[in-house]
Amino acid sequence: MNRITRLFGIRYPVIQAGMIWCSGWELASAVSNAGGLGLIGSGSMDPDQLHDEVQKCRAATDHPFGVNVPLLYERNQEKIDLLKEEGVKIIFTSAGNPAKWTSYLKELGFIVVHVVANVKFASKCEDAGVDAIVAEGFEAGGHNGREETTTMTLIPQVREAVELPLIAAGGIGTGRGMLAAFALGAEGVQIGSRFVASPESTAHPAFKERIIQASDGDTMLRLKRLGPVRLLKNKFSEEVRQLEEKGATTEELAIHLGKGRAMKGMMEGDMENGELEIGQISGLIREIKPASQVIQEIINEFNEAKEQLTSIHFE
Amino acid sequence: MNRITRLFGIRYPVIQAGMIWCSGWELASAVSNAGGLGLIGSGSMDPDQLHDEVQKCRAATDHPFGVNVPLLYERNQEKIDLLKEEGVKIIFTSAGNPAKWTSYLKELGFIVVHVVANVKFASKCEDAGVDAIVAEGFEAGGHNGREETTTMTLIPQVREAVELPLIAAGGIGTGRGMLAAFALGAEGVQIGSRFVASPESTAHPAFKERIIQASDGDTMLRLKRLGPVRLLKNKFSEEVRQLEEKGATTEELAIHLGKGRAMKGMMEGDMENGELEIGQISGLIREIKPASQVIQEIINEFNEAKEQLTSIHFE
Repeated sequence: MNRITRLFGIRYPVIQAGMIWCSGWELASAVSNAGGLGLIGSGSMDPDQLHDEVQKCRAATDHPFGVNVPLLYERNQEKIDLLKEEGVKIIFTSAGNPAKWTSYLKELGFIVVHVVANVKFASKCEDAGVDAIVAEGFEAGGHNGREETTTMTLIPQVREAVELPLIAAGGIGTGRGMLAAFALGAEGVQIGSRFVASPESTAHPAFKERIIQASDGDTMLRLKRLGPVRLLKNKFSEEVRQLEEKGATTEELAIHLGKGRAMKGMMEGDMENGELEIGQISGLIREIKPASQVIQEIINEFNEAKEQLTSIHFE
Repeated sequence: MNRITRLFGIRYPVIQAGMIWCSGWELASAVSNAGGLGLIGSGSMDPDQLHDEVQKCRAATDHPFGVNVPLLYERNQEKIDLLKEEGVKIIFTSAGNPAKWTSYLKELGFIVVHVVANVKFASKCEDAGVDAIVAEGFEAGGHNGREETTTMTLIPQVREAVELPLIAAGGIGTGRGMLAAFALGAEGVQIGSRFVASPESTAHPAFKERIIQASDGDTMLRLKRLGPVRLLKNKFSEEVRQLEEKGATTEELAIHLGKGRAMKGMMEGDMENGELEIGQISGLIREIKPASQVIQEIINEFNEAKEQLTSIHFE
């Protein structure tokens, strides 16, 4: 037990990231049933779909689960209204300023967690009254901070700056990664990529297959002027690289990106022209495994690696 | 004791990175005297100066020390000849292919360590017969890998790929960072930035002061087309950013860089027009402290943080 397990009422301080196109009710409920905290990723859902996902998730688990609400998308008021109505207790907000929604969400009674990528926003979270923060490093998949601070250096700096319960994200997919995060001062981990490669994720099978084939160096941070996103290398990301090297403007990048690229890649399985958001830890993911097995392996490896560390002593 | 302390004959598996303009005999001998492994950074030295540094280092310590030889600079044959002649036992090679020099260095009787930033070169190291590898992540200061793989994800991938003794570098400057690296599978750490901020480093006082003032987000990877280098933000790095955003060619970048920028910044203290190579962990460095105190703090914190971890158990 620690501050994170108590805050959410869960067994293991392992949070499954709420990701667009990949994390619906099936993944979230599987993670929650296995003792972690599952999150429905509402960024790719309209309010009607989210409503449906929440109802299905509740039917599939008696354990706590939450919803990720990226502040950069629209119709968030409708989403929050329905989450309140449906009795969802936990909201993770991301991609925006915590000052914007936190006090309103707290008034409504939600447990509020906000995702940050730098120390300044971690401090803003404390001022805004969030219940916990996720500090996410440069190695994370999908939307990413402009400072490019990695998990290894971000976690201790955030730990030093704020007292809040701290969840580490970015580059974590194993029990050893979780142990490293705890060594740096985290009290929980948020894991995305590894759960995308599970049968319960709604990612297209071709995308899951690409993830387990990926090596180190197969993802890069692209679209920096538009808003940095970590992507698997493919035809689309190579086109973006060429545009960026030529000095393309924000507008030119936005036109090339167009609409629906992420859905096309992650949901529909277009491995050439789709946007494939995944983290650097994909290089270490070798098999598609059920979410419950992933959680159990992470916890077992955490405990074993901790025992091994115990025997190392320098003086 | 572990494979790294035995390989070098040292007390603590803490290696001080051999850095241009910052790590001469004074820093290297202070680190070695404190139980770590000090390295003279020969990249910014001509053979005559290196000769002098080696002799002074030997006079200042009875403990093992080594020399870093970046393969991208010239006159390496002369340097290796004099290191052999002077009885130096340990060479760290970096910035190049380990196949190029390793077998020759091994024939001469050196302990050879090579620095890599990806799994492919880690495997090449094993084939080439190096004695240990340093795997260095994206958060490291100075010259950096093109894949941008962070320490958190690089170390476990390299650990899985090779059997060699493994030293983690990039983003490590504290005992907790060292513990995280060990959790990921490393057996030693190489630390640069934190030792630059010591009285024994030859960095200019103004540069040391900038390091202890730095916050998260104050460094960026620049000059990517020329060869990526992590730099503190200043007038020069801002000019480079603007050139890069306009799509500057390798040639244009090389002309703007010119000659002697690193010396101008790190050695001579030109905080505006100099090239200031430092890692992301600079955001966590608050004080200039003697190298021996740095080592003792790291080891104490490693041991204490390990004890704290022991009490955490999930089942």
